[in-house]
Amino acid sequence: MITLHPESDTPLYEQLYAALADDIRRGRLAPGRPLPGRRTMATRLGVSTSTVDTAYQMLAAEGLAVARPRSGFFVQETGGMLHSRPDRPAAPAAEKCTEENKNVIKYNLSTGSIDTDLFPARSWGRIQKDLMYHRPELLERGEMQGDANLRARIASYLSEYRGVDCTPDQVIVGAGIEYLLGCLAHLFAGSLAAIENPGYGRTRAVLENSGIPCVPVDIDRSGLPADGLEASGANLCYITPSHHFPTGVTMPAPRRAQLLTWAAARPGRYLLEDDYDSEFRFDTRPLPSLQGMAGPDGPVVYLTTFSKSLAPGMRIACMVLPQSLLERYRRDFAVYANTVSRFEQQTLCTFMAEGYFTRHIARMRLAYKRRMEHFAAALRAALGPDLVLGGVHSGLHFLLTLPGAGGEEAMVEAAAAQGVQLRGLRDYYMAHADRCPPDTVVAGYAGLKAADIEGAAQALGCAWNS
Amino acid sequence: MITLHPESDTPLYEQLYAALADDIRRGRLAPGRPLPGRRTMATRLGVSTSTVDTAYQMLAAEGLAVARPRSGFFVQETGGMLHSRPDRPAAPAAEKCTEENKNVIKYNLSTGSIDTDLFPARSWGRIQKDLMYHRPELLERGEMQGDANLRARIASYLSEYRGVDCTPDQVIVGAGIEYLLGCLAHLFAGSLAAIENPGYGRTRAVLENSGIPCVPVDIDRSGLPADGLEASGANLCYITPSHHFPTGVTMPAPRRAQLLTWAAARPGRYLLEDDYDSEFRFDTRPLPSLQGMAGPDGPVVYLTTFSKSLAPGMRIACMVLPQSLLERYRRDFAVYANTVSRFEQQTLCTFMAEGYFTRHIARMRLAYKRRMEHFAAALRAALGPDLVLGGVHSGLHFLLTLPGAGGEEAMVEAAAAQGVQLRGLRDYYMAHADRCPPDTVVAGYAGLKAADIEGAAQALGCAWNS
Repeated sequence: MITLHPESDTPLYEQLYAALADDIRRGRLAPGRPLPGRRTMATRLGVSTSTVDTAYQMLAAEGLAVARPRSGFFVQETGGMLHSRPDRPAAPAAEKCTEENKNVIKYNLSTGSIDTDLFPARSWGRIQKDLMYHRPELLERGEMQGDANLRARIASYLSEYRGVDCTPDQVIVGAGIEYLLGCLAHLFAGSLAAIENPGYGRTRAVLENSGIPCVPVDIDRSGLPADGLEASGANLCYITPSHHFPTGVTMPAPRRAQLLTWAAARPGRYLLEDDYDSEFRFDTRPLPSLQGMAGPDGPVVYLTTFSKSLAPGMRIACMVLPQSLLERYRRDFAVYANTVSRFEQQTLCTFMAEGYFTRHIARMRLAYKRRMEHFAAALRAALGPDLVLGGVHSGLHFLLTLPGAGGEEAMVEAAAAQGVQLRGLRDYYMAHADRCPPDTVVAGYAGLKAADIEGAAQALGCAWNS
Repeated sequence: MITLHPESDTPLYEQLYAALADDIRRGRLAPGRPLPGRRTMATRLGVSTSTVDTAYQMLAAEGLAVARPRSGFFVQETGGMLHSRPDRPAAPAAEKCTEENKNVIKYNLSTGSIDTDLFPARSWGRIQKDLMYHRPELLERGEMQGDANLRARIASYLSEYRGVDCTPDQVIVGAGIEYLLGCLAHLFAGSLAAIENPGYGRTRAVLENSGIPCVPVDIDRSGLPADGLEASGANLCYITPSHHFPTGVTMPAPRRAQLLTWAAARPGRYLLEDDYDSEFRFDTRPLPSLQGMAGPDGPVVYLTTFSKSLAPGMRIACMVLPQSLLERYRRDFAVYANTVSRFEQQTLCTFMAEGYFTRHIARMRLAYKRRMEHFAAALRAALGPDLVLGGVHSGLHFLLTLPGAGGEEAMVEAAAAQGVQLRGLRDYYMAHADRCPPDTVVAGYAGLKAADIEGAAQALGCAWNS
């Protein structure tokens, strides 16, 4: 029986979340069992349905519950990590294991790929052509922050889908997150940045190239911890709260609140929120952005990229600066030209304005979800009941652990010998690599064609079933 | 009531756009009010829906209207983004000194413009469309330095036309010279840079933003002098030897040799040669690049941009690194993605490979030369025999001196009152502004349409003939 305390300082949705989370963790709510419908629960507790929604989404974000379309929320089968079902048959391993073509890459499971077949080349190409023939003024230099109408579109999209709280004035379009991080490095000259460990080596390289030293802070099951951050001495903190790269951890609301408290404690502290692939959450809508929690004047810089939602070959990313940084940015970068071609800016703007963008995202999300499920099933069939897949519900890669496989280095080598390119989780550790879970690799499936899924899984079966 | 003129040379969509823009600016269409649906408007005016679409999108791009999903277009709510834009030029013959429309810009003589009519939109658009439909692999991430085939094309073009001595390996493509200067700033961390005085304020801003302090060195009639450079204590030297910006001085060979001697005298000294508009030399072929004199291992970084040869709205520039810097660049920037869209890289590559680029340059050079001669003649007619024009044989701007005109500040103000936007030479001085020649302004003519040349000259006559 759940009792909420309306007079408490803790918001109702957080109380409800905490009570349900506790029930799930203690097994009082059995794995697989449906949670009460939102209206039922709201009536029962005398709260609004949005309170229930928020609590359920937090549970889903934590991996304690899963949303099923048109069926509601269910208690997670195994509490966050998706284990393989023991009733699955083990691999028919001997079938196609071959010594031929050793080390020729047949299956690329790196995390930077996308499925180019999903790109709406016809619509994009048609818009682009129209602009080229009818909008010669796009040949002229545009606004420094990016074209105003594109910034307005982006602000409205981020507000609706990511809860970002900003005006178009705060949006800055740039040719990739690396470029934007370089601009930030100037604004934050003299800072020390905490970065997630494990995490993006790229961010560290860019910040350090730009004069911002970085200190890795070990993440826990909720992401980067506030006490570790405080101890690091950093005044900047780069995080991927929607979907930690590469482990897939989603930062729950209480941890987000702690980080915001850290940032608010001293002037000059900022969170850099990289929301690089939040479009691809399969079980539920992702938690709204940290930036939205902090508000337009809060100490958060929000960054995102169109590399995954459109294509890595097009260089379009954007950031949302808080008001506190905007004036200085405008003064120091006044003479800079924007780095994104105006034709691509305006193609994207029309693509968003005419509704193609949201449809494209929805179609991709469905396609990638099916691919993830197909690949996960094929891997379970090939690798047997010991396989553990982590972080499957979000993003375009997951962690693959095969206990007893002989260590990740051997796994990566054996995979390569069977034509499968992937990286070990240890590669993403910038410190304390000894704390890396053993026998774990990072498998991206976005670039894997449907026809290659079974082949890739079988090749890994050949590689790792000894 | 909008009336369109199908017999006019002005496209229907532009006529419609101009009429609506005027209505919005004059408040005849109230903020927030919906524009008629595209079909309604098309039927009412007897034009196609795509004409209406284009006009509406132009309004949106200008910030005069906003599109709302599934609701159509609305007049922009706030006046904040409204700005006037000269839609139609005044008839040149009718130009007389007037007090009406004071300070409305009719003639933009700033140096960043180009004539968009000269852009080969058909060929470019056709190549781009083919790539979009037939080269899906361009959606994937490309090489860090830029696509290899484009770099090969650029190396060969620069070798043939600019005497640059390099392999494609040394070429780095990037989204604008500012971006490339930012990369160089990292390679040259701890340096002091000498820059030309007068010169590009932009270069100074970018280098100083990126941690490289700059010291202005006064140029003389041959450009930046080696003794001034030696005295500055700098180890880097940024120069525009083909066509000094903004005075138009071309650095003669002996001075180039002196600067190379300076650079060779100590390790860590480098010349940054910005060859930003050498395509537009009208009297003779430009001197080969300094980089070519120094050779592929010499102490010169060569920079150039496609902003002038193609369009400022496309962000493509490149640099050629000497071998001595290449290894470090590759190591430090290994994880960076290139900043130029691969579709634009490959469109440019095909454009160059099929001979369009050199033909386009030749056509533009001729068109701009005629424009320069036409404008110079119109100015002499309007301003009389005291007028002195400097730096006319190269680049897309010249210096205009009118002794006794009352100082450049008064000249710029009076010009603005007659609808002509230009800047005084003093604006480009970063030190010793007292040494600036008097009564001198910088006039760019690349953005001036043929039909506007007489009008612009007459407006300056009205402004400065007292």
